Formats: sequence, structure tokens, C-alpha cells
Amino acid sequence: MTALTLLDYASVLIFALTGALVASRAQLDLVGFAFMACLTAVGGGTVRDLLLDRHPIFWVGQPDYILIAVAASVLVFFTAHLVESRYNWLVWLDSFALSVAVAAGTGAALSLDQSGVIVVLMGVTTGCLGGLMRDVVCNEVPLVLKQGELYVSCAFTGALTAVLAARLGAEPAFSLALCALVCWALRAGSLMFGWQLPVYKSRPPRN
Amino acid sequence: MTALTLLDYASVLIFALTGALVASRAQLDLVGFAFMACLTAVGGGTVRDLLLDRHPIFWVGQPDYILIAVAASVLVFFTAHLVESRYNWLVWLDSFALSVAVAAGTGAALSLDQSGVIVVLMGVTTGCLGGLMRDVVCNEVPLVLKQGELYVSCAFTGALTAVLAARLGAEPAFSLALCALVCWALRAGSLMFGWQLPVYKSRPPRN
Amino acid sequence: MTALTLLDYASVLIFALTGALVASRAQLDLVGFAFMACLTAVGGGTVRDLLLDRHPIFWVGQPDYILIAVAASVLVFFTAHLVESRYNWLVWLDSFALSVAVAAGTGAALSLDQSGVIVVLMGVTTGCLGGLMRDVVCNEVPLVLKQGELYVSCAFTGALTAVLAARLGAEPAFSLALCALVCWALRAGSLMFGWQLPVYKSRPPRN
Repeated sequence: MTALTLLDYASVLIFALTGALVASRAQLDLVGFAFMACLTAVGGGTVRDLLLDRHPIFWVGQPDYILIAVAASVLVFFTAHLVESRYNWLVWLDSFALSVAVAAGTGAALSLDQSGVIVVLMGVTTGCLGGLMRDVVCNEVPLVLKQGELYVSCAFTGALTAVLAARLGAEPAFSLALCALVCWALRAGSLMFGWQLPVYKSRPPRN
Repeated sequence: MTALTLLDYASVLIFALTGALVASRAQLDLVGFAFMACLTAVGGGTVRDLLLDRHPIFWVGQPDYILIAVAASVLVFFTAHLVESRYNWLVWLDSFALSVAVAAGTGAALSLDQSGVIVVLMGVTTGCLGGLMRDVVCNEVPLVLKQGELYVSCAFTGALTAVLAARLGAEPAFSLALCALVCWALRAGSLMFGWQLPVYKSRPPRN
Repeated sequence: MTALTLLDYASVLIFALTGALVASRAQLDLVGFAFMACLTAVGGGTVRDLLLDRHPIFWVGQPDYILIAVAASVLVFFTAHLVESRYNWLVWLDSFALSVAVAAGTGAALSLDQSGVIVVLMGVTTGCLGGLMRDVVCNEVPLVLKQGELYVSCAFTGALTAVLAARLGAEPAFSLALCALVCWALRAGSLMFGWQLPVYKSRPPRN
């Protein structure tokens, strides 16, 4: 199993957990949990594969991914009431899923010899779109757009790091690990210490 | 005309009616009706074809589908005021469209010799995604996520029935008819008698 | 550079400006601006290319598009406070972007010898879907669905004009210019003079 496949499995598993947690906040039934888990888990990677014309789509060729997502949703259905703060779990699991998925998307694009801009974009797409679909469908405020937090920025910086590392001749597995690490460190810093970029402020109203 | 083509036409027609009904609730003009009808009618099948890399997409190769959807939207534009409860019509028409579209999606994937998991997923995708797009764009509460009702579950069970029937050697047309029937019976039972699966309940707040 | 490429660049640039303006209304940071600008700028054309199975997707093969969108978002981030009414700018820029994107979509489908129905649809898709994604993600009321305004109708009429002109033997560049002009004139008329189609009115409530 290559590093890339491993990353895909890990990101599917963790994103599926976050999808199921959002389903628990919407009080869906078990099938609803599985639906949201699958949508979140494979959403970003599916868009990546469609954009890059990689067929079969990763989970169409390898239905294990779906079974993993379904298993994760069953687990959450029966255990989510045990955790103290589901929203906290959601946000932190999402930070891991984001990091791993950015690395997976970046790795896939690197292995297809795309240009640097496209590699970075595929990392961002794979990382951010699954969660975005989850939040739009369930009518949560998209984490992507939350003010005063780094999110897309983490994905972007992580993917950029991987591209630079690869250009400098690093091993693929090393570049991708670095990518996930940078992405996660930024996201965790933003969640814990409130790291953020300056946001756009419109001028104050004139009198 | 094969059973599969017939199912595609039927699902396009009925989903187009539901899309136009949602447009009537949003008080759009005739072109808005046609837009929503087309989006709803071909949304699920388009995603299915993209995921399975079936080109041309069913309606790109055969623009009749679009003309049918447009005709349906014109019909609704001029007659929707005649019905007693547009929401009731919407929900019931949607139940027929769902059943037929699940059968169409399942049939398409079966004819491509996909694995069982993928066939079931394609049925669910084709059935549920057109209506989901309709509801997200028009800001209705997605039927997919409505609490206390079976929806994705019906699609799932219908598609699963078709896969099992096909494995047991049933005729394709028979499997698909069974699929639509099972899906619709469950959905109708849920609408009429309140059938549902247990939903996730968070634990009661501690004192 | 062909007329078609020029149209693609122009529509990417103008749509990116509108995406960044919406980001400014949501008070995102610079990376959020770039994300929204890219989503809006390439959204419609990406769906068009996926539906028509044109690979590589226009911006995957030519990453300049992304750089243009990012440059536009940086420009807006630092200058949006200078304009009097950001919403006015948004709506008017969107009208230009719509017209140019409809022409680009129509041109792409014409050059692939698609049937008339599909050409018109591709024009509408390319023109309307980028803006729709922008508005759904940022939770604005979609311009597509705003009551009492022409929007999809402008795209539809513009694309239809181009198809008719092409059928009558007009030069491609001329057909596309006419398409953009008709689309923009209708949209501008709707914004300035309140042109609209009759909307659906449900019957008055009975006593």
C-alpha cells in the first residue's frame, strides 16, 4: 500500500466521523448518518478526480472506502452521546481530516505531474470541499468561511510546502508528511491561540 | 426503447414537475421555472454519469430530456394554482420521482457491471441528488434530511433489492420494477403512516 | 489568441472580482478572498467542461486563469473600501461577467458541434453556475433566483441569439459578440428599468 493510498483511507475515515457528527447535530437516523458520512468522506477527493479526469474515481474503483465511511457512521451513531462536546470533537477531527486530505490531494496531483499551481489547488480542493458540502447540505456555517480562523489558508500553506519540498527533491512520502504537519499545525494554532490573518474591514460609516 | 431509457424519461418528467413546483413556491418567472425543472430533472443522473465516466452525459447525447423538462415546467407554470396544496403534490410527486430515479440509476450501474456497493450508491445518488440540489438552491429544507421520515433509506433499500434480485438471476426489467416498488412503498408508508427509523438522540442534559 | 480564449479570460477576471466582493461582504481574510474569487471565476466553465468531457478542464491546462483570479482578489481586498456601494458594483460587474461567460460557454459548445439545445444550455450553465456557487456558499440570495429581475432569461436569450446567428452563417466572433451584447442589454435593462417577465402568482387565499 503506497503512502498515497494510506492518506486516502485515513482522510476518508476521519472525514466520515465528522460527517456523522454533523448528522448527529441534525438528529438524523442511521441511514442519514451514513449518507452524510459518505458525502463528507469522498466529496473532496471526488471533485479532485473529476477535475483531473482520473477514472475510475477512487472509491468507484475501490468500494472499501465506502464501507469504511459507513462503519464510521455506525460507530458515531452509537457512541456520540458519550462525548462531552460534540462540536469540539467535530472541529478537531475536522482539523486532522483537513490535513490528511490536503496531503492526499497534493500527492495525487504531484503523481500526475501537474504544474505547481494546479497541485496546490488540488490539495486545497480535496481538503476543503468535502467539509464544505457537509456544511452546506446540513446548513451549518461552513468552517471554510468562519471569520477569525485560518482554514483555507492552512490547506494552501500545507500544499505549497509539499510542492516546494518536492521541487527541492524531497521524497514523496516526506513531502506529504510535511504538508499534513504544516497544515495541521496552522489549523491547531488557529483553534487554540486564535491565530488569524487580517480580515477585510469596510471603512467605518461616514457621519 | 429499453426499460432503462423509459425509466430515465419518466424520472426526468416527474422530477421536472417537482422542480417547477418549488419554483412556484419561490415565485419565479417562466424561465426560472424551466431552470429549476432542468436542474432537478437531470441533476442526479448527471452526477451518476460523471462519476461513472459515461459520456456523453445522458441528456447531452439526447436533448429530448431537456425539452421534456421544459414542457413540464410550462405546464406547472400555468396550472399550479389549480391544485389544493402545492406542497402535498410536491412531496408525493417527489416520492414517485425518487423511486423511478433510483431504479434508473441502479439499472445504469448494473449494466456497466459495477460492484454491488457501487450499484447501490449510484441508485441512491441518482435518486437523491437532483432533489437535494433543488432544495439547496431554493433554500427549502432538503427532503433528504427531514427528520422523522424515511428518504435515503427508501432509496437504499430499493437499490439493494435490485442488486439482490439481479444476483439471484432475475430479469433486469423485473429487478428494476421491484426496486422502484420497494422504494416507493417505503416512502409512501413513511408519508402516510409515519414509518421511521430511530433517530439519533443526544443524552439529556445533566443537572 | 482566439476570440474564445479571450472571452474565457475576460469572464474569469470579472467573475473573480464579483467573488472577491462577496468575500468582502462576508469579511473574510485574503485567502478567503482568493478562494471565493477562484470558485466564482472558474465554477461555471468547469461544470461546462465536465459535462462536455473536455479535458483538461480549461484552467487545469492553463493555470494562468487561476493567477488572474487571485490577482483580482488581491486588488479587491485592498481597494473595496474605496467604492461607494459594494453591492452596486457587485451587481453590475456580475452583469458583465454573466454576458461574457454566456458567450464563452456558447462558443465552446458551438466549436464542439453540439446540437442547438445543448449549445444554449452550455451558455446558460457557464454563465449562471459560477455566480450560483458563489451565492450558495456565502449564503447570499442567489442572483439567479431574485424575483422581479431577469437573469437566467438574459443568459438564455443571449445564447439563443448566438445559435441562430451561427445557423444563419455568421462569423463565430460576430455571433459571440452579439450573444454577449443581447445578454447584457437585457440584464442592464432589467436592473435599470425594472424589465421583467410575469412571475408565478398563486391564487389569492380563499375566505
